[in-house]
Amino acid sequence: MLIVQKYGGSSLADADKVRNVAGRIARSRDAGNQVVTVVSAMGDTTDELIGLANRVAERPDARELDVLLSTGELVSCTLMAMALRTMGYASVSLSGAQAGILTDTSYGRARIAGVAPGRIMSEVDEGNIVIVAGFQGITEDMDITTLGRGGSDTTAVAIAAGLGADRCEVYTDVDGIYTADPRLVPRARRLDEIGFEEMLELASYGAKMNPRSIEMGMRYNVPILVASSFTDGKGTLIHGEVDMNGNVGEIRNRVRGIATDTNVAKITVLGVIDRPGIAASLFEPLAQADISVDVIVQNASVDGTTDMTFTVTRTDLARALEVVQPVVEALGSRGTVSDDSLAKLSIVGSGMQDAPGYASRMFRALADKSINIDSITTSEIRITCLVNESQVADAACALHDAFQLDAPQE
Amino acid sequence: MLIVQKYGGSSLADADKVRNVAGRIARSRDAGNQVVTVVSAMGDTTDELIGLANRVAERPDARELDVLLSTGELVSCTLMAMALRTMGYASVSLSGAQAGILTDTSYGRARIAGVAPGRIMSEVDEGNIVIVAGFQGITEDMDITTLGRGGSDTTAVAIAAGLGADRCEVYTDVDGIYTADPRLVPRARRLDEIGFEEMLELASYGAKMNPRSIEMGMRYNVPILVASSFTDGKGTLIHGEVDMNGNVGEIRNRVRGIATDTNVAKITVLGVIDRPGIAASLFEPLAQADISVDVIVQNASVDGTTDMTFTVTRTDLARALEVVQPVVEALGSRGTVSDDSLAKLSIVGSGMQDAPGYASRMFRALADKSINIDSITTSEIRITCLVNESQVADAACALHDAFQLDAPQE
Repeated sequence: MLIVQKYGGSSLADADKVRNVAGRIARSRDAGNQVVTVVSAMGDTTDELIGLANRVAERPDARELDVLLSTGELVSCTLMAMALRTMGYASVSLSGAQAGILTDTSYGRARIAGVAPGRIMSEVDEGNIVIVAGFQGITEDMDITTLGRGGSDTTAVAIAAGLGADRCEVYTDVDGIYTADPRLVPRARRLDEIGFEEMLELASYGAKMNPRSIEMGMRYNVPILVASSFTDGKGTLIHGEVDMNGNVGEIRNRVRGIATDTNVAKITVLGVIDRPGIAASLFEPLAQADISVDVIVQNASVDGTTDMTFTVTRTDLARALEVVQPVVEALGSRGTVSDDSLAKLSIVGSGMQDAPGYASRMFRALADKSINIDSITTSEIRITCLVNESQVADAACALHDAFQLDAPQE
Repeated sequence: MLIVQKYGGSSLADADKVRNVAGRIARSRDAGNQVVTVVSAMGDTTDELIGLANRVAERPDARELDVLLSTGELVSCTLMAMALRTMGYASVSLSGAQAGILTDTSYGRARIAGVAPGRIMSEVDEGNIVIVAGFQGITEDMDITTLGRGGSDTTAVAIAAGLGADRCEVYTDVDGIYTADPRLVPRARRLDEIGFEEMLELASYGAKMNPRSIEMGMRYNVPILVASSFTDGKGTLIHGEVDMNGNVGEIRNRVRGIATDTNVAKITVLGVIDRPGIAASLFEPLAQADISVDVIVQNASVDGTTDMTFTVTRTDLARALEVVQPVVEALGSRGTVSDDSLAKLSIVGSGMQDAPGYASRMFRALADKSINIDSITTSEIRITCLVNESQVADAACALHDAFQLDAPQE
């Protein structure tokens, strides 16, 4: 098999861990696989480099910053290739540019425009284990870019897609995707498999995989195994074939997991006159200020005015209020109310989209624990409630029980 | 003026020092100069990276190691460009490859084959202060190489030569070139100027400039100023025009400085039959083992046999004895004697080459202090004695006085 692997920074935090990972890569090679491995920067290297940049410059230049940050992965990929060679395995390291990762010019959060897999493929064909620096690419003008947080996941899936690899394996410090956050729900259980769309909803709601990598896996149908780099567990396979494995009915008719997120703040704009264009005039300046708005709830209009509620991350709250203030005045609103003591709680499962009753079971389970629901939104495969942060663990446990998520998967 | 500067690692050890150097670069720009600055890796970065490589691999692969080490200078050059931009100066960083530093393929100690100054020059013409990653280059096959210890000095002089710059300024943690090592000779004095050849002899004998950078300065006639990055002293100008500044007689008729080196071990091969090819058969295997041989003394033959003495660094002594052993047996020698308690002591000055009497004054000064001379070698502008290490400070002071090196330069 042709396998693309990815190891994250916590799996590469020091020289011993690098050697350990080299051993794991070697075992995959010994098993007869052709292996391309994408590595992140060691441990907290990226944060340290950002800290350094902030100490020399008030606003580090984006182009320079990307070159700076790209060095972290160059260090880890060369070390990994050395470690493998010392163990007697032919290996070569490639920078993102050498590996053919082509991006747009959005420094700091570049998007992959294409993969030119020629160099990787010829190194693989020569018998090399190829180690690729993750998180980075190169523009048409040969400038170095970085892909933003979690970018190495995206590098790995993009290379797997570009090479037509059989599988992408993402190794991290946890042993897979869980039915819920184990810190909140002690009975949370590792999932053997999950669909791309379900994973996207979980990824957006607390679990640790870069959503862009899941989207790319979905688009190019690359199965992604998420597993631990420290143990030999089975991990969780993210794939698009949940509907096709014979077990359709049972699997679709389920909630797959509980997502929680406590980095949530709510802003309500009171008494907005309900006319076309209001929402746009509110959310356009937020988008321009690069503030991500998540849940949006607009109540039905009463007396020609309505209340508009939306959430942002807590870190963005103060800035969001600043941006919104002049708009609120222009709209003739009665003012804004904000709350940063809320948490987001979701049930996720592709089986929900054509089976009724999930919402009512969710609300009943929360009511039975006297947990008040602040707001509700839904997507096709997700139902989300805002609840008080102090109750989020109780709420998640209650839902985990109500949907029998601790039972073994079929 | 078009000026190429170079700052070493100790001048860039932390964020504050980077900002401080940025201020110095900015002042040179404010004075109306076009500035290209070459930087080393911050502080002990290179040693730390080598340490890391040695912890993951017994024998780090040379090609991978060079990519690894090259990241140190990428970090410092991007930080410097950011710091300058924050101060309002247009600035751009370039890797060795982008700066057009072309090298041979000797990983870890590559030699510069040429400089393609197009990119640097166009950035300078656009008004940018260009910051270049030192110590690194790129081969014809686009592989990254490093130039070995002190390689950033060579980068700077090569760029100055390639650009036809007016001057190369090397900033370091001392304020210039001294008449002797101040730790041994308290009355040692900074030189205002020194010739390339003299500097080469001093560099080879303890003072801290990469000899390759001096050779390159001499070949392309690039004046090199060595000065402190922490103070505003005048520094020492290394140049080729000592003979042409009107003050010829006085300047040529002098010893310029005292060089000392304690990393010396001596090997004597006893009773070698004196026939052609003996020296070659002894020194070829040493060269193959990458052991640098310095002083070589062969006494006149007595009874058809001779003793052959040479020095290596102390760190190479054990390995050198191993390499020499089989040759010694094959030559029918009576065996080897080694001594690692010696030091090398030299007087250097281009004025010595056509003025007699310097050797006798040197030997007299040492004799007056009861310092025994083990061996003597000379070049056109240098006389070197091996003396006991315990006496090297006394010996250096005696010579400093004898040649009146504490008197102001004419």
